[in-house]
Amino acid sequence: MRVVVVGGVAAGLSAASRARRLDASLEITVLEKGRRISYAACGLPYLIEGQVASVDALTVYKPEKFERERNIRIRTGAEVVSLQHPRRELVLANGERVKYDRLVWTSGAREVKPSEYADDPRAFVLHTDADAEKLQGYLRDRNPKTAAVLGGGYIGLEMATALRARGLKVSLYQETTDLLGREDAFLTGALLSHLERCRIETHLNTRAPARLDADLILTATGLKPNVTLAAEAGIELGRTGAIRTTETLETNLHGVYAAGDCAETTHVVSGRPIWLPLGTTANKMGRIAGANVTGRRERFPGIAGTSLVRVGGLAVGLTGFSELQARREGFSPVVARISAPGKARYFWGRQVQVELTADRSSRRLVGGSVLGDEGVAGRVNVIATALTMRMTVDDFAQLDLSYAPPYATAMDPLLIAAQQLLHLLD
Amino acid sequence: MRVVVVGGVAAGLSAASRARRLDASLEITVLEKGRRISYAACGLPYLIEGQVASVDALTVYKPEKFERERNIRIRTGAEVVSLQHPRRELVLANGERVKYDRLVWTSGAREVKPSEYADDPRAFVLHTDADAEKLQGYLRDRNPKTAAVLGGGYIGLEMATALRARGLKVSLYQETTDLLGREDAFLTGALLSHLERCRIETHLNTRAPARLDADLILTATGLKPNVTLAAEAGIELGRTGAIRTTETLETNLHGVYAAGDCAETTHVVSGRPIWLPLGTTANKMGRIAGANVTGRRERFPGIAGTSLVRVGGLAVGLTGFSELQARREGFSPVVARISAPGKARYFWGRQVQVELTADRSSRRLVGGSVLGDEGVAGRVNVIATALTMRMTVDDFAQLDLSYAPPYATAMDPLLIAAQQLLHLLD
Repeated sequence: MRVVVVGGVAAGLSAASRARRLDASLEITVLEKGRRISYAACGLPYLIEGQVASVDALTVYKPEKFERERNIRIRTGAEVVSLQHPRRELVLANGERVKYDRLVWTSGAREVKPSEYADDPRAFVLHTDADAEKLQGYLRDRNPKTAAVLGGGYIGLEMATALRARGLKVSLYQETTDLLGREDAFLTGALLSHLERCRIETHLNTRAPARLDADLILTATGLKPNVTLAAEAGIELGRTGAIRTTETLETNLHGVYAAGDCAETTHVVSGRPIWLPLGTTANKMGRIAGANVTGRRERFPGIAGTSLVRVGGLAVGLTGFSELQARREGFSPVVARISAPGKARYFWGRQVQVELTADRSSRRLVGGSVLGDEGVAGRVNVIATALTMRMTVDDFAQLDLSYAPPYATAMDPLLIAAQQLLHLLD
Repeated sequence: MRVVVVGGVAAGLSAASRARRLDASLEITVLEKGRRISYAACGLPYLIEGQVASVDALTVYKPEKFERERNIRIRTGAEVVSLQHPRRELVLANGERVKYDRLVWTSGAREVKPSEYADDPRAFVLHTDADAEKLQGYLRDRNPKTAAVLGGGYIGLEMATALRARGLKVSLYQETTDLLGREDAFLTGALLSHLERCRIETHLNTRAPARLDADLILTATGLKPNVTLAAEAGIELGRTGAIRTTETLETNLHGVYAAGDCAETTHVVSGRPIWLPLGTTANKMGRIAGANVTGRRERFPGIAGTSLVRVGGLAVGLTGFSELQARREGFSPVVARISAPGKARYFWGRQVQVELTADRSSRRLVGGSVLGDEGVAGRVNVIATALTMRMTVDDFAQLDLSYAPPYATAMDPLLIAAQQLLHLLD
């Protein structure tokens, strides 16, 4: 049986590898339009910052690894231009036709340069390896002194601090009143004062001026799922604009699965569709799709909406809903906000800020955000686990979390926040 | 109504504070036999290491804070020598009698010097503030060059590395074949090679020689709950030897509650009694007992057996059961053991080792251990949360955990371990 995977970054390679592991007899081909497979796209801002030497240093596996060790055929530079499902056939840009029995569609997402900067040689986006290499070349050859970053999402914030770390004077423009795509005044306020400390001039609720005089313009105004071809082929999209799938990640076309940044999934707190293009989710969805093309029926349960970003040394973790989002989803949110040391005073830990949101009637946790240092990732993961298991604040407040002075406090900031929530719910 | 709290460290002060917060009319007295209240006992090894200047620097609150701000009477140097429940009366060492209506018993645990070292001036224990000050004086005045540490539990390991960090030549003796009280060859093996790197000579399965020629002997061969007085007064003990309570932390004597290191609790994985004297649990139990003396009926759900310790720069976190312990508890354990980077390669994170144990028939997680750096605390907390919610490996493997290159990998070591467990369960 011929399995074809369209896209060779996170979801695609996970799908191909999982399918191979479960069924040695399949003929598996990965079609990747780019030059590289398997590079860690989330590392691109660190390449620009100078922490990573080259895109190749971000490459996890070379095609040979898949070809030799896993017997998966990898074709780079293979751009699909049409999907003809009735004939179980893909058409490539060079006119070639590729037959499949089962298809995994992982066409990803894209960052588009806003039209007013389309021809501006100072303007860049950062989404693919090629984008990063172009930007890296410009930084090296033109040595820009000032930068304007448009967009206050993950890439916008990471790039603003990366360019700042390289010594550029950076201005950040965000059209809405919040940062990181989270309507959350607590979070936005904390980020704003941190950006000020990093000496990044931040303009919220502001369109960038028509005539930007920066030497470099980085536009990061929002990703879109790559779904044009899929839609043309009759693959159904969901409300979010990304591909809709069943729990087993099959699309409305029988035998065609979708995974990763081109597909929507379910939010475990609300049970509603969500599109949040992140590598972790792409890997997990890819593995499930890869299992299911072999005849399994594994289900992807959805996501809690967890994300983590470093903004100039500050770790920011989010999961579930903010107060405003929770209200819009039909919950009656109650919110605790605390600041507490993340480890014993004599280990000089940074203060940790925790926001924890619960639903008044069910007492279930519905979201949280954590700001601080290394301990943030683990803390936001504990909240994400609690959200997934529909945990109440009452149970959460009694969690047996670890304590040792170099790493934590006897009363973890998460538990302090939970205690405050209990008082508010009393 | 008179509420008397016996013991003024973790559980006792939590109980008194919570009771006061819920009922302003109570007359609340804390009787502490020691000189200080509210010092962070878990910080004592760091005092010996030199990270902390004095016991006073470990003191969280001074008695005045409780007296003035919370209207709680604090009596230090007040040793209870008898509890006469029929008369609702405590007798102090000075003969004084103290009446109560409700009693919270938080008599803690103790570390006893083995009898062969009872009179040896080189031999110390480290459990209380007074122990630490004696040891600190000896280190300062006698400048010992060699140390023998007896016991491979938390205090033993922390003290071995603390003394090593001060430049002493350290030998560690442990009578059983495992370390940290966890029958777990994986963990013990990892710790042994780490102790070797720290140049601590470790002897497992070995009684210390009768004539130890070390300049300093630290005995940490095991804690015992302080229950003599309680037992004399008719308070029932459990199988673990610590005080048995109901879910609301009441003892068999009506109106007498027990909390903290003197009391046993329930293991959330097995549902069986467990005695694990740790400050975090003491704080939580104290708060519940403090609420319940005011007439509430809050329940303490038990613990997952989570603990965390730093051993010479290595973070070690444990929760739930090891394979051997799980088998003894009636589970059919299946174990995954993996080693993976804790963050992106270009952020130079240490490898993280994860052991994850599940029950074959129910597919529930029953335990885990994690070794590495700062990320260990959060990872063991995620496992503890999963144990508390009786999560299956299937659900755990799909958790939406956070990812950002400076702090984590796209596929968290926890999820890699869960994937391995899924293969083993397949």
